[in-house]
Amino acid sequence: MHSIAEYKDFFIRYLENQIITKEPKNLYDPINYTLFLGGKRIRPVLTLVATEIFDINFKSALPAALAVEVFHNFSLVHDDIMDGDSIRRGKTTVHKKWDLNTAILSGDAMLILTYQYLEGYEPSLAKALSKVMTKMALEVCEGQRWDIDFESRQNVTVSEYLKMIEYKTAVLIASSMKIGAIIAQASEENCDLIYNFGLNLGLAFQLQDDYLDLFGDTPSFGRQLGSDIISNKKTYLYLKALEFATETEKEELVKLYAVRLDDNAKKIETITELFRKSGVPRATQEAIESYTFKAFESLDKINIDENKKVLLRGFGENLMGRNV
Amino acid sequence: MHSIAEYKDFFIRYLENQIITKEPKNLYDPINYTLFLGGKRIRPVLTLVATEIFDINFKSALPAALAVEVFHNFSLVHDDIMDGDSIRRGKTTVHKKWDLNTAILSGDAMLILTYQYLEGYEPSLAKALSKVMTKMALEVCEGQRWDIDFESRQNVTVSEYLKMIEYKTAVLIASSMKIGAIIAQASEENCDLIYNFGLNLGLAFQLQDDYLDLFGDTPSFGRQLGSDIISNKKTYLYLKALEFATETEKEELVKLYAVRLDDNAKKIETITELFRKSGVPRATQEAIESYTFKAFESLDKINIDENKKVLLRGFGENLMGRNV
Repeated sequence: MHSIAEYKDFFIRYLENQIITKEPKNLYDPINYTLFLGGKRIRPVLTLVATEIFDINFKSALPAALAVEVFHNFSLVHDDIMDGDSIRRGKTTVHKKWDLNTAILSGDAMLILTYQYLEGYEPSLAKALSKVMTKMALEVCEGQRWDIDFESRQNVTVSEYLKMIEYKTAVLIASSMKIGAIIAQASEENCDLIYNFGLNLGLAFQLQDDYLDLFGDTPSFGRQLGSDIISNKKTYLYLKALEFATETEKEELVKLYAVRLDDNAKKIETITELFRKSGVPRATQEAIESYTFKAFESLDKINIDENKKVLLRGFGENLMGRNV
Repeated sequence: MHSIAEYKDFFIRYLENQIITKEPKNLYDPINYTLFLGGKRIRPVLTLVATEIFDINFKSALPAALAVEVFHNFSLVHDDIMDGDSIRRGKTTVHKKWDLNTAILSGDAMLILTYQYLEGYEPSLAKALSKVMTKMALEVCEGQRWDIDFESRQNVTVSEYLKMIEYKTAVLIASSMKIGAIIAQASEENCDLIYNFGLNLGLAFQLQDDYLDLFGDTPSFGRQLGSDIISNKKTYLYLKALEFATETEKEELVKLYAVRLDDNAKKIETITELFRKSGVPRATQEAIESYTFKAFESLDKINIDENKKVLLRGFGENLMGRNV
């Protein structure tokens, strides 16, 4: 097996041969632009790794890895419209660089391309992959919908939030790996185990994102600590705080999350203090550890040589060891 | 075989059992709303008919017919955003009734559902259907892109316009029929012939739309004659007029198509006169007849009993005989 960095290189080299040179330019240029914005390529790499741990050469998984990456990028293009984001990976988002219609239409074409990249596999494999993709894709839409709905809802529960991030984020990580395992014709049990590894790692990763947004080291690339507080985002931290807080604290929190301020330093300080007092950082860390533990438990159960698991264990530890 | 009206009833009864009752409501309600807005259900009916003319019961084609109809409705939801349309089939469009984000996301989910409805077929059939769907879907995106691009381009040719309407409209009609034929395991030649029947009929249909918008009987349901002129739409009539016109007439046309007026009666009158003088109505009628002829030529060549073709011939004649 290769290293994660090597798999990433293999994937990028493959991706570079997939530039779409067809007309109309205004449909395909934004797709090329999005696919070459960079990014960590975590999902396609996980597809390749999942194929190789079951003793099949990663090359047979490249088209599926591409499908996974193109699906991910489709969701970014449409999410950026919905969230009104102008910057993605340090570059202008499609709907800002071009326009709304371009982002809608090129996003649609990317979603369709996702399925096209699976069409090269033999029928029963293509169908199995397509089914995983479709189930996941609908869940991602559902997760995005919950996320939008939660913005204007006052009674979101922690368990609803967990379901939302599971659908919006974790199922794609999980499916990326399951797809690799299916290509390697792994047993159904092994496919499910690697799916659960990805799912729990994805959940841990998202909770860690919530945590680091406030309690991480000051990031070097200009991201501000507490950005979720500034935008009144109902993260795990906030929902957990509501669960733990006294009635008075709860009222204060709800009030603070109802305003947008020009100077947020005081708001962040007050909320951080409230979070600390009610034990939110610790509870969040525990949840992260619990999901990470579940992920590694699933990995342990996969019926393959121990040395094949080293890479994924290292990947998981790395992901969870980050502090920005 | 049944009548077109009966196939429509069969399809609607099937559709009524497909109401999505899942959460989140804000994702699935707009989908149900769109699917039950009505419409002629031409595309799914053609799928069912195409299966039956090759001696397979239409019931096996119902999921694919649903896929076709859901894809069509996906494209309407996203097109209505892009075109800024508020009314569709006499009802408020999704992005106006709900909002932009809802229309984007529910449209995405409909595109994904299209593929899910094909997953019930056995693998080699599912793959064949999925391939037709994907090729068509990308072409529809390309057609929509050309259509948007043409709005701001001054040098659109008649042949570019024909390609645009082929992709935006005709390939879906053609693919709806091919999908039915594939389910019936028709020969590749027959699949291609029925595709070409649908393609040419679709082209004739769209050109007739252009023609009737200006030269049709005054429609009873309040649509205005000349609406394409009011919105400066570069239809076949306009592009053909540019081809035929003298330099002076050309200049006048371009100038007239550059303004939006409050009182359009004079504009419509002047342009109609220009069209008539340069022989546009006749040329358009000839093009419609030529595509209709090609469609029936393909139908003739399909290797099935003559009595199986009666329904499709009648359908085509009906479609082309309309005058509103």
